[in-house]
Amino acid sequence: MLIIMQQGSTDEQCDAVEEQIRRMGYAPLPGPGENRTAICITGNKGPVESALLNQMAGVLECIPVTKPYKLVSREVHPDDTVVRIGSVAVGGEAPTFIAGPCSVETEARTLEVARRVRAAGAHIFRAGAYKPHTSPYSFQGLGEEGLHTLQRVKDEIGLPVVSEVTDASLAEKVAEHVDILQIGARNMQNFALLKKLGELKRPVLLKRGISATLEEWLMAAEYLLAEGNPDVILCERGVRTFNNHSRNTLDLNVVPLARQRTHLPVLVDPSHGVGKRDRVRPLARAGLAAGAHGLMMEVHSHPDTAYSDAHQTIDVETFAGIVKDASILSQLEGLFPRAVAAE
Amino acid sequence: MLIIMQQGSTDEQCDAVEEQIRRMGYAPLPGPGENRTAICITGNKGPVESALLNQMAGVLECIPVTKPYKLVSREVHPDDTVVRIGSVAVGGEAPTFIAGPCSVETEARTLEVARRVRAAGAHIFRAGAYKPHTSPYSFQGLGEEGLHTLQRVKDEIGLPVVSEVTDASLAEKVAEHVDILQIGARNMQNFALLKKLGELKRPVLLKRGISATLEEWLMAAEYLLAEGNPDVILCERGVRTFNNHSRNTLDLNVVPLARQRTHLPVLVDPSHGVGKRDRVRPLARAGLAAGAHGLMMEVHSHPDTAYSDAHQTIDVETFAGIVKDASILSQLEGLFPRAVAAE
Amino acid sequence: MLIIMQQGSTDEQCDAVEEQIRRMGYAPLPGPGENRTAICITGNKGPVESALLNQMAGVLECIPVTKPYKLVSREVHPDDTVVRIGSVAVGGEAPTFIAGPCSVETEARTLEVARRVRAAGAHIFRAGAYKPHTSPYSFQGLGEEGLHTLQRVKDEIGLPVVSEVTDASLAEKVAEHVDILQIGARNMQNFALLKKLGELKRPVLLKRGISATLEEWLMAAEYLLAEGNPDVILCERGVRTFNNHSRNTLDLNVVPLARQRTHLPVLVDPSHGVGKRDRVRPLARAGLAAGAHGLMMEVHSHPDTAYSDAHQTIDVETFAGIVKDASILSQLEGLFPRAVAAE
Amino acid sequence: MLIIMQQGSTDEQCDAVEEQIRRMGYAPLPGPGENRTAICITGNKGPVESALLNQMAGVLECIPVTKPYKLVSREVHPDDTVVRIGSVAVGGEAPTFIAGPCSVETEARTLEVARRVRAAGAHIFRAGAYKPHTSPYSFQGLGEEGLHTLQRVKDEIGLPVVSEVTDASLAEKVAEHVDILQIGARNMQNFALLKKLGELKRPVLLKRGISATLEEWLMAAEYLLAEGNPDVILCERGVRTFNNHSRNTLDLNVVPLARQRTHLPVLVDPSHGVGKRDRVRPLARAGLAAGAHGLMMEVHSHPDTAYSDAHQTIDVETFAGIVKDASILSQLEGLFPRAVAAE
Repeated sequence: MLIIMQQGSTDEQCDAVEEQIRRMGYAPLPGPGENRTAICITGNKGPVESALLNQMAGVLECIPVTKPYKLVSREVHPDDTVVRIGSVAVGGEAPTFIAGPCSVETEARTLEVARRVRAAGAHIFRAGAYKPHTSPYSFQGLGEEGLHTLQRVKDEIGLPVVSEVTDASLAEKVAEHVDILQIGARNMQNFALLKKLGELKRPVLLKRGISATLEEWLMAAEYLLAEGNPDVILCERGVRTFNNHSRNTLDLNVVPLARQRTHLPVLVDPSHGVGKRDRVRPLARAGLAAGAHGLMMEVHSHPDTAYSDAHQTIDVETFAGIVKDASILSQLEGLFPRAVAAE
Repeated sequence: MLIIMQQGSTDEQCDAVEEQIRRMGYAPLPGPGENRTAICITGNKGPVESALLNQMAGVLECIPVTKPYKLVSREVHPDDTVVRIGSVAVGGEAPTFIAGPCSVETEARTLEVARRVRAAGAHIFRAGAYKPHTSPYSFQGLGEEGLHTLQRVKDEIGLPVVSEVTDASLAEKVAEHVDILQIGARNMQNFALLKKLGELKRPVLLKRGISATLEEWLMAAEYLLAEGNPDVILCERGVRTFNNHSRNTLDLNVVPLARQRTHLPVLVDPSHGVGKRDRVRPLARAGLAAGAHGLMMEVHSHPDTAYSDAHQTIDVETFAGIVKDASILSQLEGLFPRAVAAE
Repeated sequence: MLIIMQQGSTDEQCDAVEEQIRRMGYAPLPGPGENRTAICITGNKGPVESALLNQMAGVLECIPVTKPYKLVSREVHPDDTVVRIGSVAVGGEAPTFIAGPCSVETEARTLEVARRVRAAGAHIFRAGAYKPHTSPYSFQGLGEEGLHTLQRVKDEIGLPVVSEVTDASLAEKVAEHVDILQIGARNMQNFALLKKLGELKRPVLLKRGISATLEEWLMAAEYLLAEGNPDVILCERGVRTFNNHSRNTLDLNVVPLARQRTHLPVLVDPSHGVGKRDRVRPLARAGLAAGAHGLMMEVHSHPDTAYSDAHQTIDVETFAGIVKDASILSQLEGLFPRAVAAE
Repeated sequence: MLIIMQQGSTDEQCDAVEEQIRRMGYAPLPGPGENRTAICITGNKGPVESALLNQMAGVLECIPVTKPYKLVSREVHPDDTVVRIGSVAVGGEAPTFIAGPCSVETEARTLEVARRVRAAGAHIFRAGAYKPHTSPYSFQGLGEEGLHTLQRVKDEIGLPVVSEVTDASLAEKVAEHVDILQIGARNMQNFALLKKLGELKRPVLLKRGISATLEEWLMAAEYLLAEGNPDVILCERGVRTFNNHSRNTLDLNVVPLARQRTHLPVLVDPSHGVGKRDRVRPLARAGLAAGAHGLMMEVHSHPDTAYSDAHQTIDVETFAGIVKDASILSQLEGLFPRAVAAE
């Protein structure tokens, strides 16, 4: 149940509603919202009786919520969320392209890649300073040194930057240098990390776990919103199945459904989704065609010498081709209507 | 190993090569081919020594084949196969649309649907006369009566027809009335059926099994080609995974890889692939964008009253929208280059 | 809905009930049963109103069935089915062991293996005369020659024999020489084959499909029972998952649940289930411990030279060890209570 | 590559070897071992040339390691690791039983359950103070209050205690009160947590991730050992597959293979593995029969009123039955040989 307060309702009225919710045995959770106040009822197992609440002063309406997630739900927030990072909008009028190497590399190389992907159409730069790796003996990223390189990408190339936070204890340090904090697939249900990034209130890119259901993914996003952080971007990056012909199985079925269920932007990562360089472009096209708000891709000026994920990293020319593809795909009815209108 | 004979090589030269292959302990399989003769060596476990064969009269070259499948492989047949049914080409210059109800229904309704999907852009009509169903108590199709209705679709509406053969014993009867014989997902490894349809030499549409690897799928096609039937169309229709948000998980990763590995046309069936009517169009777009040669879809003039699969059957208007989408998608570089040239 | 007739009810009474069912718009299916007659109502989508039927002459009771399968259900047939082949009982007082090579080999070798597995404790001999193989170029079995060898195993060694039927057209020929007709995993939903083996009324061993749900498996068995064949043995043989450490993932979770849901015997095939010779014994133990009525295993006197599946074929000594294990496992409470009592 | 030093080799000799490894461009990692010193070479991508190292003073032998994991491998450590917590041994002569409620509940209830499972044969008590839950609105555990209750279980009931650490920042606090630190399935690749628990050098129970391969699981354990913590217990708890008949699919195929590949003890958790109370006992039996060193189970004196996981929590009587089963299963050849010898 979500209680929507009237515009102009007073703090006292809100407090009274919260008190009444507690009296009913539930926990009130004041929701985010600029122009209106919403109070989410949590802790209920079944439906909540709304008669008492409905007649209280300042209450506009009581919306029953049938899904286990609430704040991420379209039921509660019908309009698309647009996450803004400076002048870049994710979830808005046009597709967003996030591009860059898997890991931060040397300053010179990283700046070169950033310059080139920017010229080719990228809106946001990606590169990992902290890399989660299956083996303790693998390259674990450049760490703090990498963050300083990312800072230079922001300052000198002018691209906003997304980078992964692998543990709650690193969140604040990463947030000093990076615009969007990424939660990787392996950490989608690292609840301590989710809570920490919810509190930090910086834009978060939440990758889908390797075998997460849609509901689990939305619930992970709910952790972030429940802490008061509305700026969450979802990213489908392939799931694990019996298929042995690609690293993961990109699940594009989930894209239109996620867009129905939630107001949050949904990106697709074809690099991890298919895991082979020569198939990234067809799957990038497919991701946009299925309705994604944009793409996140591993791109490098010299893919063969990339520090990590070389096999799935495309070159800048291929990335430029995908940007060109997107302008054709934007003509599809309803895909980016405002983009079409704006042109 | 594949032995390619020179153009103009004589029957005697071919016979001598086959005899030599037998002497080496393998089985020769003369391959299909209009302008040149190819002889496939089967029965070998490891590499075959080609020195003796190479110097025989009439032999052009000896091609080692590194995959377990041979005749379906691009190594052996580098050019795309185009399957022609009258004036309709599958795998050719433009995307192919196969549309119609899940099952053959009454004559009047079936003809009405055929007329309407034809007007909306369908090239081939689909409808099942024999329906494989999980439950023995479910509707099993109209059988022979359905075949006669399909004959009327061909004769009166002028659309070629594809329909499923559920058992080898039905193959000849279905082939009397139907242009393309479909092997359903559950029968992808029904080897008796594969051999029968290989012998019949009628175009075959081979759906991918619900948990078949790419290699198993291509091997099933190899059964058809090994019997001398070159007219095989592949169709991806979703695989079974842990996902519970859709009936199957449409595997678009497989599309560009299948197109690399085999010369056979590859279609996508978004109806079974996602299993929900309101998500068919985005996945249809995605299938084409990933490189499919066309789409197979469940379409009905009154989807809610369809005899079967109503939940995933789209209306004719949605189908017409997808045809329109395809003309936009055809502008993507390399997707349907000849189509673009022809316009 | 299942209508149970009183003992001693007349044919006329049964006919009247069937006629009434038809009048209600459903299809009556007279069920199997020696001492009492049961009439299954099929064709209903929702619950059936039983008031009219309940009061008819000869009717004992009307049992609503909540599952999509009926005849295989414990609701309809509470007692365990015991499938008897001569003096061998499957599903009865003691575990059953089915052992033998993957394929029928030379007569001498096949008889040798049969003699040795019999001495080691096998109750039934297994070997394939017709082999379904992924590749058209693989060994497809000895066919009819193999059936004659199996006949000699029956006649000279005195073991009943199970062998796979790969197509409906082969069923009668196989049934001439073989006691139990096996439906392989790839054919679990080959409905023409299921109907044919239902009609033949010979014991059938139905393997679970490689990605079949429990419900689909039971529905496949329902096809056999609906044709009037009550002698069906189920066999779990591993399912396909993301796991790459074994050929399949043996699903022992399904064993106790299948035993709750159906009265049919449930075997486990650890050879295909794990796919590696050195792990067959621990999984054989686990299968029995989980409640299977017996085991089906690939056993050979010279496993390394087996015509097929050598990697998962155990030697006779290992098989003998498993038989010994079973007598220890039979002490587990409730596992084989009557077996314990009988000793 | 692993360099084994002679018994009696000096610190100077070890230092010289480490220095030489660094000169070769790799990183030396001195390994655990009471009677001998082993130095692991990490950072190599391909094989390491051992000629130089082999002839150095104090070197006994150089063992090439073919797996990506080293310290957890049988190649490097052939003997079984026995993890000792006071008088309890995991991985030793007899099966270990870990039992208790999903979550810590009230002190009175928790102590009651502990007393009863101890009487029924439990060696270690389990209960979560910090609960990772998919929904932010679910019960998240009693936290610090729960730890104090667990301390009372240790002090008053005399059972060692295992409890989950959900984040690296909680590790030290949990370690104050708890004997074995559990890493849950969702955190199997939370590398910050793995490193922290590696450093703490307290016994760790590492659950397999919901879709982790065996290799990924062993690599996660390698993180712990690489930090110098040798006391790691593995626990299979079911994986995610297409199966919808149980919460997870218990993968018993992995048990004998894990025991071949690693020297670490391997437990099975049938509670999560099957997810239904009435199937826990058959799967518990199966887990032991497949070769597990013990079982971890959710057990409660009043299962229906358990704070969480009630549907998969068994009562104390069922648990006592499983302990009885284990003494029968211990008679199986090679399962618990020393246990048998000791009786």
